[in-house]
Amino acid sequence: MTVYLVGAGPGDPGLITAKGLELLKIADAIVYDRLANSELLKSAKASAVLIAAGKSPGSVDLTQDQTNDKLIELGKKFDCVVRLKGGDPYVFGRGGEEAQILIDNKIDFEVVPGITSAIASLAYAGVPITQRGVATNFTIVTGHEDPTKPAEQVKWADLAKIEGTIAVLMGVANRGSIASSLIEGGKNPDTPVVIVRNGTTND
Amino acid sequence: MTVYLVGAGPGDPGLITAKGLELLKIADAIVYDRLANSELLKSAKASAVLIAAGKSPGSVDLTQDQTNDKLIELGKKFDCVVRLKGGDPYVFGRGGEEAQILIDNKIDFEVVPGITSAIASLAYAGVPITQRGVATNFTIVTGHEDPTKPAEQVKWADLAKIEGTIAVLMGVANRGSIASSLIEGGKNPDTPVVIVRNGTTND
Repeated sequence: MTVYLVGAGPGDPGLITAKGLELLKIADAIVYDRLANSELLKSAKASAVLIAAGKSPGSVDLTQDQTNDKLIELGKKFDCVVRLKGGDPYVFGRGGEEAQILIDNKIDFEVVPGITSAIASLAYAGVPITQRGVATNFTIVTGHEDPTKPAEQVKWADLAKIEGTIAVLMGVANRGSIASSLIEGGKNPDTPVVIVRNGTTND
Repeated sequence: MTVYLVGAGPGDPGLITAKGLELLKIADAIVYDRLANSELLKSAKASAVLIAAGKSPGSVDLTQDQTNDKLIELGKKFDCVVRLKGGDPYVFGRGGEEAQILIDNKIDFEVVPGITSAIASLAYAGVPITQRGVATNFTIVTGHEDPTKPAEQVKWADLAKIEGTIAVLMGVANRGSIASSLIEGGKNPDTPVVIVRNGTTND
């Protein structure tokens, strides 16, 4: 009766952890995100219950509340439930919220970290996120909120002061306003930028 | 004739990637760091050449230059060489420098990312590095240089302005001066702190 919050990694199915892969093989039920590589589901046993969660264009999926309810239901029913999440469960994956829900409902859980695309997509693209003498720190930030919106929680002007690498996840749509916000905050407009989509995959 | 820069992960041997583990099993030679869990070396084939690199108290190890030379030598000799590094090869691991040396010497290489302890050690300790409404970004920084030394490259006063989680790797020895530097930079002295040693391991 344990729910495992498992990070699927950034896209390349080889980048799931050995522990995560073993759990997929024995899981009685798997609740998976669109962001998790579907190739990984082939490791599931034939009798495993497979449930899609998260946003997927053109298909009926679960809201976060429905996902939480499903995890509670499955966690009470099966020995081994895997909640398969893209990247790392605790990096912008609402894994912390799902963990809290499981705690509140007295369901045993364990987190199995995953490779975050913020680091691995850059690595596959040939860019070390740190380099001695160049970048001695790095910041990972979500770019899915528009920096020009009043509700924006990310303080881009403060981030602009940091000298290390800034890795923006889910920032393609807002790339223009993110760049503007960083430059307004003092970031040198000549700062090199790399944009990666479908990182670590054949696409 | 390929050198694989493989991340061993944070300590729990189950947190190496599936791809990294497969490479360990077929490697002709493995050059490993002290930071990589020695349990992983049991996966190596019997004929594999095993070479310790990096700093290890009380044993004769390789300097970075010697490690680089060894990678070049082995890369020219064997089909599959694994350079096994603690955590992620490109997170403060000098992996970027090793990659550059291999490029300069026209030796094929590939990077296989690893789980960084900055995220996973916190996860195992029960702390999500991001949490909606609490931490919408996080910064990973090396703490092995003393903030009071003039040569220090990390701008702690700037990091203090960031609202997200700050994860300091290798910061135990300098924890006092790091905390002082952050507070001097404006960080609230009541900011919660967690210190993790031997993260994700049975110790």
